[in-house]
Amino acid sequence: MPVKKNSIRKIGVLTSGGDGPGMNAAIRAVVRCALNHGLKVDGIMRGYAGLLKEEIVVLNHRSVSNIINKGGTILKTARSEEFETLKGKRKAVNILRKHKIDCLIVIGGDGSYKGASVLFEKFKFPVIGLPGTIDNDIYGTDETIGGHTAVNTALDAIDKIRDTAQSMERIFVIEVMGNRSGYIATEVALGAGAEEVIIPERKCNFHELVEDIKEGNKKGKVSWIIVVAEGAGKAENIAAKITKLTGLETRFVVLGHVQRGGVPTGRDRILATRLGVAAVECALEGMFGKAIGVLSDEINIIDLKKAAHKEYKHINEFRKLLRILT
Amino acid sequence: MPVKKNSIRKIGVLTSGGDGPGMNAAIRAVVRCALNHGLKVDGIMRGYAGLLKEEIVVLNHRSVSNIINKGGTILKTARSEEFETLKGKRKAVNILRKHKIDCLIVIGGDGSYKGASVLFEKFKFPVIGLPGTIDNDIYGTDETIGGHTAVNTALDAIDKIRDTAQSMERIFVIEVMGNRSGYIATEVALGAGAEEVIIPERKCNFHELVEDIKEGNKKGKVSWIIVVAEGAGKAENIAAKITKLTGLETRFVVLGHVQRGGVPTGRDRILATRLGVAAVECALEGMFGKAIGVLSDEINIIDLKKAAHKEYKHINEFRKLLRILT
Amino acid sequence: MPVKKNSIRKIGVLTSGGDGPGMNAAIRAVVRCALNHGLKVDGIMRGYAGLLKEEIVVLNHRSVSNIINKGGTILKTARSEEFETLKGKRKAVNILRKHKIDCLIVIGGDGSYKGASVLFEKFKFPVIGLPGTIDNDIYGTDETIGGHTAVNTALDAIDKIRDTAQSMERIFVIEVMGNRSGYIATEVALGAGAEEVIIPERKCNFHELVEDIKEGNKKGKVSWIIVVAEGAGKAENIAAKITKLTGLETRFVVLGHVQRGGVPTGRDRILATRLGVAAVECALEGMFGKAIGVLSDEINIIDLKKAAHKEYKHINEFRKLLRILT
Amino acid sequence: MPVKKNSIRKIGVLTSGGDGPGMNAAIRAVVRCALNHGLKVDGIMRGYAGLLKEEIVVLNHRSVSNIINKGGTILKTARSEEFETLKGKRKAVNILRKHKIDCLIVIGGDGSYKGASVLFEKFKFPVIGLPGTIDNDIYGTDETIGGHTAVNTALDAIDKIRDTAQSMERIFVIEVMGNRSGYIATEVALGAGAEEVIIPERKCNFHELVEDIKEGNKKGKVSWIIVVAEGAGKAENIAAKITKLTGLETRFVVLGHVQRGGVPTGRDRILATRLGVAAVECALEGMFGKAIGVLSDEINIIDLKKAAHKEYKHINEFRKLLRILT
Repeated sequence: MPVKKNSIRKIGVLTSGGDGPGMNAAIRAVVRCALNHGLKVDGIMRGYAGLLKEEIVVLNHRSVSNIINKGGTILKTARSEEFETLKGKRKAVNILRKHKIDCLIVIGGDGSYKGASVLFEKFKFPVIGLPGTIDNDIYGTDETIGGHTAVNTALDAIDKIRDTAQSMERIFVIEVMGNRSGYIATEVALGAGAEEVIIPERKCNFHELVEDIKEGNKKGKVSWIIVVAEGAGKAENIAAKITKLTGLETRFVVLGHVQRGGVPTGRDRILATRLGVAAVECALEGMFGKAIGVLSDEINIIDLKKAAHKEYKHINEFRKLLRILT
Repeated sequence: MPVKKNSIRKIGVLTSGGDGPGMNAAIRAVVRCALNHGLKVDGIMRGYAGLLKEEIVVLNHRSVSNIINKGGTILKTARSEEFETLKGKRKAVNILRKHKIDCLIVIGGDGSYKGASVLFEKFKFPVIGLPGTIDNDIYGTDETIGGHTAVNTALDAIDKIRDTAQSMERIFVIEVMGNRSGYIATEVALGAGAEEVIIPERKCNFHELVEDIKEGNKKGKVSWIIVVAEGAGKAENIAAKITKLTGLETRFVVLGHVQRGGVPTGRDRILATRLGVAAVECALEGMFGKAIGVLSDEINIIDLKKAAHKEYKHINEFRKLLRILT
Repeated sequence: MPVKKNSIRKIGVLTSGGDGPGMNAAIRAVVRCALNHGLKVDGIMRGYAGLLKEEIVVLNHRSVSNIINKGGTILKTARSEEFETLKGKRKAVNILRKHKIDCLIVIGGDGSYKGASVLFEKFKFPVIGLPGTIDNDIYGTDETIGGHTAVNTALDAIDKIRDTAQSMERIFVIEVMGNRSGYIATEVALGAGAEEVIIPERKCNFHELVEDIKEGNKKGKVSWIIVVAEGAGKAENIAAKITKLTGLETRFVVLGHVQRGGVPTGRDRILATRLGVAAVECALEGMFGKAIGVLSDEINIIDLKKAAHKEYKHINEFRKLLRILT
Repeated sequence: MPVKKNSIRKIGVLTSGGDGPGMNAAIRAVVRCALNHGLKVDGIMRGYAGLLKEEIVVLNHRSVSNIINKGGTILKTARSEEFETLKGKRKAVNILRKHKIDCLIVIGGDGSYKGASVLFEKFKFPVIGLPGTIDNDIYGTDETIGGHTAVNTALDAIDKIRDTAQSMERIFVIEVMGNRSGYIATEVALGAGAEEVIIPERKCNFHELVEDIKEGNKKGKVSWIIVVAEGAGKAENIAAKITKLTGLETRFVVLGHVQRGGVPTGRDRILATRLGVAAVECALEGMFGKAIGVLSDEINIIDLKKAAHKEYKHINEFRKLLRILT
């Protein structure tokens, strides 16, 4: 679907799905890089929902000043049932054309990618996707915008909980985000020096865990950190089960939405910046229907329709390390 | 109950109840100040439970190096059913005497104070109490060790959640610690610029809150932060009720044990340090059965038996401010 | 200088002098409290300099949304030589009257207070001062907006430097802010467990310090933290002198402007909020020419002309504690 | 230099050169992985200096508990002139053999690698190197232990300084670590949204920078952040020069040793953990004289003698991005 370089005059950008730290850095990079190339930029508020309501604002150099280190997204995000339908998508394309937007850059997770892909495949509307999700579960990229920060936020919380786990000598089950993805849980468990991790991608041998706890208890090991991804079980239930089976007092914490917010880490800011610039350059090259990512620390471009859910590549290695080190 | 100044040779120190940031700074101050005055110091592990098991260690200058900024408590803490009984308390006193401990410094909340008070009133054993609780609910002191840090930890979490609350335009109900105390909830609500606070000390006009939300929604106000102390209701239930009555999507987060841990703030470190030194000086003066606190930023000493639960003094003022400012 | 309650219709607010964390929370409180009482609010940009250039903007409820946790000041701040003159002050008053501002709220340090005081004493213009300075050196208040945060920022930095001080076994001299005020230095030294503090308010017995270091070195003490307020000497020179006199490698760090910025702590947010509301209420009462502060944790109002530089009240106590505990 | 797998019985580990966050996580991984394989571990205190003084301690499972999130290094680090000589190195090897250490794992920068390389090449002593330096300037690895944390610490400081830069509308020159390496400076400049970066690897067109500032000033741009690596010039001198040539007030901050300390980020903890395990597995395989790193996020092993200083790979790309986005 090549388009002549000079045919692009205006870019639209939106954020979709759950918000994540670094989305603002990506928006800033898209806007400033586009302006630098003489393009105009429209910001679409509230994702696809706002697009269907024509909530569209002009973005200039100053619109994105001092947002590189702010959590959330200045464009806001929302869900849209209307956009789920083909009719909704057709309407979206008409609105984009009406506003003379030549290319739409979508920052979001794999759900948002799917919608964008249909705009391109079905309606031939030029779109480019950037991976904005804390779950790091998108094919074609090693990292996703927000993932690094979410891991550090969860680690910071677990470091605090560990103070109590050790002072009060308790078992703690800590639930982190990740419905289908064990990325945050696995990274956090390894980084926190946790004793166990429970994730949706692998079966948990709960019986073995309970035996480990019992045996550790005999040897004097009284403080445990068990990390569970939300998609693999409720921390509350797991804690209750451990208490029941071991007789040892077990507490739980659900970290929840804290993990979505906060000041993005350096790596998320830089990742988002590189991806935002690459998206604009991709548009200038007339390469559409693409998802941009980073593989081996270099920009990587694949077809949007291929950028589906993928499993975090280090899951097996990190689980093995966990077992060796605790 | 005056004792001659030179009659004190050894001090015992323990932490009891829930742990809190700054307890280590207090232990450090007790140890170093006592050593500075030529006294010996025994550390009693795991609170009253450890005392009954004679888990007693010698503490020297180096034992407390580099702990001033560490969360938790190096002496650990635990609950003890045995100590609840009078028999248990008698046994505790015998063990203290056997170890030639001339005065016991107890760092804990009002529950721990009650036990200590009995040791003094009933068994004439010299005790001194330091307010170690994040709830700031002890009579005779404006501040308690760990309270400042807990407020800042909760604020930091709410700042992050606000990123999402604004990006996704949601109502968030955030549950903070405080079973009987609205201290953390009230401070945090005012400091976070929250819209509402629900605490155990005051009735919540839930109907009014729901009307406010509905009316705000009509005017375009879509993002709400409601802070609830754990003793005043479950965030989960409140969120469900708001959703049901307003039709607006409402999320909840339970901050939980994160609030107990972490690096103590400057104010908690300094408070703990001042209190620790004052406790030792109090012991040297032969003043026992006392609780040490800070009133109007100056050391304040009252009888331990009077240091019961009290309500945070700013509750009415801060609730009024909240209403004016949102 | 009582004015009838209903005579106030519009309030002006400006920030002056060095910026500090919490100024935005104070602005927010002034604006929202004033609006809540039916008043209008003008924001004056860039302190007195902007006032003389009539850089005046209308502030509404939304102008101060989401700034309670932001460092710096949305009104910006600047120095003005013109305002130093009597002619400049007369011009300022004329501009204020032209804009129908009935009362000017000045958030700043003692230099800013002096200017405001002249506006009131000489030109009878209604002014109210709020203590906005990280130095905590203003008479009539125990705390100043930004001071708590500056202490915690410096502590956080020293905690990090201590990692290296211990790993590499070095002496570190750390320079913190405070030209005439040892507030930050003394709080930080006590909170960090530093070995020594050097401040402008007291003579430093440098000879004794050097002897302590030499003696400590013989006993195996190899890691030292010495905190110096900028007004009491250059860290670089002090470090060089220690190296020369002891032969021990000594490093220095100047924390600098980092201490002015950052997310305000809970205490600074709440302090600023209380003071901002009190200022508006004071104006409504027709009490002008006043400086508002907090004494013993309660609002305290004194004449602006009396609110000059004062010494931090805990200096002697904290220096004594430092000596006992290291 | 293959050695039979079962010939290894004891591993020695030391940290050398400047300390960095994550070194403790690496020590923990080495110790626990070695114990897991039935090996013994000796910890050598104070780097090569401590080795020459036989400061050697046994490390067990508990020795490395709760250090994964601590800055600095529990093994401490020091410089050694004696080890610089060939005689010193021979003595080191004799001590290692005397203590029956079969393989020495050195965690440090390229200077430490050079010494280790001589032990292997000249004295045939089995050594393995892990990249422990915040400068990320070692050939054969994309990342070095401590680099990620140093970048985030510097970013956090710059975020704070930016509050003042904007409030007071000043130009700030901020000096970060990096004697020969522009890694931290380049990452930090891009992540902070700085206007310019000055590094040792590239010439700085100072004239152009001054012209940019002058021109920006005409257009109303009054707040600048210029990041300089310490090896490329003194912030103080650069600030003075800008003031002189533009007439605009320019401040400077030297971040200094703060960058070496602090809680390691998740990425540094995980990197250090992976490298520590890989080092032990490498030793078990009898692969010596190697430096272990991570390329494209996978473990990479090269000859230690080849692991010299290298330039950060993204310097050109990131400088280009900086120019596009400001």
